[in-house]
Amino acid sequence: MSAAKSLGAPVPPGGTIGILGGGQLGRMLALAAARLGLKAHIYCDDPRAPAFQVSAAHTVGKFADQAALAAFARACDVVTLEFENVPAESVAHVAGLVPAYPSARALGLTQDRFDEKCFVQSIGLTTPRFAAVDSAQEARALFETFGRRAVLKTRRLGYDGKGQAKPTSGDEAAAAFAAFQNAPSIIEAFIDFDFEASVIAARGRDGSFAAYDPPENVHEQHILRRSVVPGRLTPRQSDDAKQIARRIAVALNYVGVFAVELFVLRDGSLLVNEIAPRVHNSGHWTIEACAVSQFEQHVRAVAGWPLGDPARHADAAMENIIGEEANAWESYARRAGALHLYGKGEARPGRKMGHFTQLSPLTRA
Amino acid sequence: MSAAKSLGAPVPPGGTIGILGGGQLGRMLALAAARLGLKAHIYCDDPRAPAFQVSAAHTVGKFADQAALAAFARACDVVTLEFENVPAESVAHVAGLVPAYPSARALGLTQDRFDEKCFVQSIGLTTPRFAAVDSAQEARALFETFGRRAVLKTRRLGYDGKGQAKPTSGDEAAAAFAAFQNAPSIIEAFIDFDFEASVIAARGRDGSFAAYDPPENVHEQHILRRSVVPGRLTPRQSDDAKQIARRIAVALNYVGVFAVELFVLRDGSLLVNEIAPRVHNSGHWTIEACAVSQFEQHVRAVAGWPLGDPARHADAAMENIIGEEANAWESYARRAGALHLYGKGEARPGRKMGHFTQLSPLTRA
Repeated sequence: MSAAKSLGAPVPPGGTIGILGGGQLGRMLALAAARLGLKAHIYCDDPRAPAFQVSAAHTVGKFADQAALAAFARACDVVTLEFENVPAESVAHVAGLVPAYPSARALGLTQDRFDEKCFVQSIGLTTPRFAAVDSAQEARALFETFGRRAVLKTRRLGYDGKGQAKPTSGDEAAAAFAAFQNAPSIIEAFIDFDFEASVIAARGRDGSFAAYDPPENVHEQHILRRSVVPGRLTPRQSDDAKQIARRIAVALNYVGVFAVELFVLRDGSLLVNEIAPRVHNSGHWTIEACAVSQFEQHVRAVAGWPLGDPARHADAAMENIIGEEANAWESYARRAGALHLYGKGEARPGRKMGHFTQLSPLTRA
Repeated sequence: MSAAKSLGAPVPPGGTIGILGGGQLGRMLALAAARLGLKAHIYCDDPRAPAFQVSAAHTVGKFADQAALAAFARACDVVTLEFENVPAESVAHVAGLVPAYPSARALGLTQDRFDEKCFVQSIGLTTPRFAAVDSAQEARALFETFGRRAVLKTRRLGYDGKGQAKPTSGDEAAAAFAAFQNAPSIIEAFIDFDFEASVIAARGRDGSFAAYDPPENVHEQHILRRSVVPGRLTPRQSDDAKQIARRIAVALNYVGVFAVELFVLRDGSLLVNEIAPRVHNSGHWTIEACAVSQFEQHVRAVAGWPLGDPARHADAAMENIIGEEANAWESYARRAGALHLYGKGEARPGRKMGHFTQLSPLTRA
């Protein structure tokens, strides 16, 4: 390993950040790296990956292709990811050749909903009640145990509502498990929350920590529709959310940006719903409302640079542009605010095509 | 010419903006195009051009290579430039194949200091006193006529102080002309200004106009050191500067972003120093202080999109990072504000390597 690739030295301007995954998050990471004079090298199996359009180099390859991964790793000074379903083994393989963040351990833990929730509880944080489900029979029985108000999810590989079911009977719970093709699953108590929120935070290689103000999030059909900061969170809840993120970051010895999705209950308390070991859709407003965006913050963290100030200089509302909504790009372009389009060819239903952020004067820091 | 390449239709997301020139301005234009889901194709003769690192496509070619230029033009939906010394004939050649902005006429006019000043006076604006110089004898004589307080410049191809002399005697004026290898030149009265300023403005394909608040600029050794907005300009001077820009844009039937460099005299009046037919170093603060930066504004203008709102949401101070100063990148990264590095390999003296922008609360709109 060359001196530049040792764990201690930061990646200097001109160096290369490797990114596993080539979607819009990889694209925005590459744009942020470019601002700092760093090159991006994208690894993705889709030859039309949106991130390729803005990167100095790219490799079309599968995550299982160890030779291609090794060649990619050797061309980079540090490697990170934009997609939490990169196999942890692939990250471990890369990490044998070049520094890679987040670690395979942190990634592996957050890839399994059951392991993740056990971890969250083990560090004294609260999650919805949950249990592992390994058979249709268990699904049926636990659905009853959970008072018939529960959500069934596969332990692995779900996002934007994929691999999730909301049964209304024991039979439906059993059928849902079968529909998951008997994949190891988890049942979670249905939470009658007041609203949803998230906190985006970063931990540097040196252990420094920085958290953005947590937005309130609105989902529609399991897809994020809108993030508003400060939203309905009280200053106390905002601080609580940041402390939750800090505790998770330290326990995972995490490096990089990550998000914690939260349920805010009617009594004001916060439950941890999910950890995303990457930059997060609910943090896109940081591009305009903060001096250092979540994307630049992640690049800084994994490259060993000092973390930037996460302070907000404005209130912000971000809304996603989903599927056919992108056809209205001209009307978005006429609105006051910041339009982002991701360079995706086809506006399929449910596909995140872009986002739009509106700023307004800071109401509270 | 295909429908998409006709003058009327805007370039839709997924389309390609061609950029002649691959320096930091081309790089920041490419980054801005990417935000809007547009691809950038850079044309530059330097195989290590900084803009290549962030662009979907690039061509290494000389501006004189008509075949390469034609192939480039055919691959683009619209072509623009980042560098005012692109030969006007090259732009005219490209414009025969695909819409190109600014026009070869506007470009040609601003490439000649004498023609430019004649134009500025012809539309009723004020410049420093000037005269064409075509011999060493004329240089000597006019230096005396101008009261021995005058600057000698080549009419064409100067930037950052190159091709300029400040003689202290008639002999020196004659020698300076000889040192310019007898290139057609211009003599300008030395202006004892209060301070320097500039105005960055845009005109859309539809004739719409938008001007940013003009910054006060400080130069050192003919290179921009610092731009501050609002600086010392009064609201009246700020409005005057925008009106100057509007008059120039309309007279040139200009499309795109341009800058007008101004001298602010002690009596409060404004003199036009120079027109730059491109995005401008003194407008870099718009990346952070405005919803739509000068780079995105230029992309919008040439792509036929609606112009964005140029309103500032903060005061701003931008300083250039020049030559060896870039070695201190870690200390810049620690400061509160936005660091931009341009991906240039070698920190040669006088070379613009990056810039740093600090925001502060808006003192006046």
